Amino acid sequence: MKKDLGVLPAVYPMPVLMVGTYDENKKVNVMNAAWGQICDEDKIILFVGEGKRTWLNIKSSKAFTVALADEAHIDVADFFGIASGNRMDDKFERTGYHAVPSDKVNAPIIEEFPLVMECELLEFLHTDHVDGIVGKIVNVKADEAVLNEKGKVDPKKLNAILFDQFQNGYYAIGDKVGSAWNAGVKWMKK
Amino acid sequence: MKKDLGVLPAVYPMPVLMVGTYDENKKVNVMNAAWGQICDEDKIILFVGEGKRTWLNIKSSKAFTVALADEAHIDVADFFGIASGNRMDDKFERTGYHAVPSDKVNAPIIEEFPLVMECELLEFLHTDHVDGIVGKIVNVKADEAVLNEKGKVDPKKLNAILFDQFQNGYYAIGDKVGSAWNAGVKWMKK
Repeated sequence: MKKDLGVLPAVYPMPVLMVGTYDENKKVNVMNAAWGQICDEDKIILFVGEGKRTWLNIKSSKAFTVALADEAHIDVADFFGIASGNRMDDKFERTGYHAVPSDKVNAPIIEEFPLVMECELLEFLHTDHVDGIVGKIVNVKADEAVLNEKGKVDPKKLNAILFDQFQNGYYAIGDKVGSAWNAGVKWMKK
Repeated sequence: MKKDLGVLPAVYPMPVLMVGTYDENKKVNVMNAAWGQICDEDKIILFVGEGKRTWLNIKSSKAFTVALADEAHIDVADFFGIASGNRMDDKFERTGYHAVPSDKVNAPIIEEFPLVMECELLEFLHTDHVDGIVGKIVNVKADEAVLNEKGKVDPKKLNAILFDQFQNGYYAIGDKVGSAWNAGVKWMKK
């Protein structure tokens, strides 16, 4: 018997996304967003409130980067979710982190985070039920240290954290327990 | 120096969502979907291809459930991502899993998965860039075994798996490494 828990945003796990943007004066902002997802092979959607610094910056710059927060940078990653870029003028600068301009889009890359998607704005999606920011992923950059010998991202080396919205916890990755399109093959043959 | 990897759907981690639906004859289908996310406190969005059995079923039933796949059921969860409900007539039945009707929405609950969101269709979203299925979460149900003493979902007890699209791996949850709105508080005081 299952127990009723009421209405909860119960998707788990969620990513810990670091959304990097420039304002009109090329001032850097970074926001922590868990509500984002791939919506096509080369597209990402972010559910970020209208009027937030990130939202305003993307409106003017037409671009953003999305990095993955890793365990080594959890404190600053969390801070980017607590502080408001609209209210704290030195939000990015006080962390001492380093931003360089993307060579692909009009947005900053934060050097400390190991992997980043460089995105061009496609649209501000707005319907009766959903508001989202849709971007085209034009390139991904990663530190060599998180790649395996074939040049592919190794999740264990990446060590990105995950977010649990049930109890607002951050967790590390655990053991590999299977492979997709493989673990269930036996059921195809029955 | 970061290395260019080209265009990749590099959000990580992704959830392993089990989307449960009825067709017009109340026949059960379950699909494995990684591209889904919370898009508001009480809403979920799924990026599922038009014409898939899940898509067709939601079109007629106006409802769906979304369960989280846990490690104990990884083989069937993966199978639900390999097999097509349009082409395999006994896709659900051959697993021996058990479906009961939701008491909240017109969709099945798969008893084996420990947590499920019961959702009413809000809209089939369609723009120049994005197609998605948006649902209102009207209730969440969970097995008592995954709740802590306060009745909240405990991620460690839940033991839901995560999906890594870099290498198509499934992983278990690891250690708790911090708490949101807490790990970064020190940076507020600088």
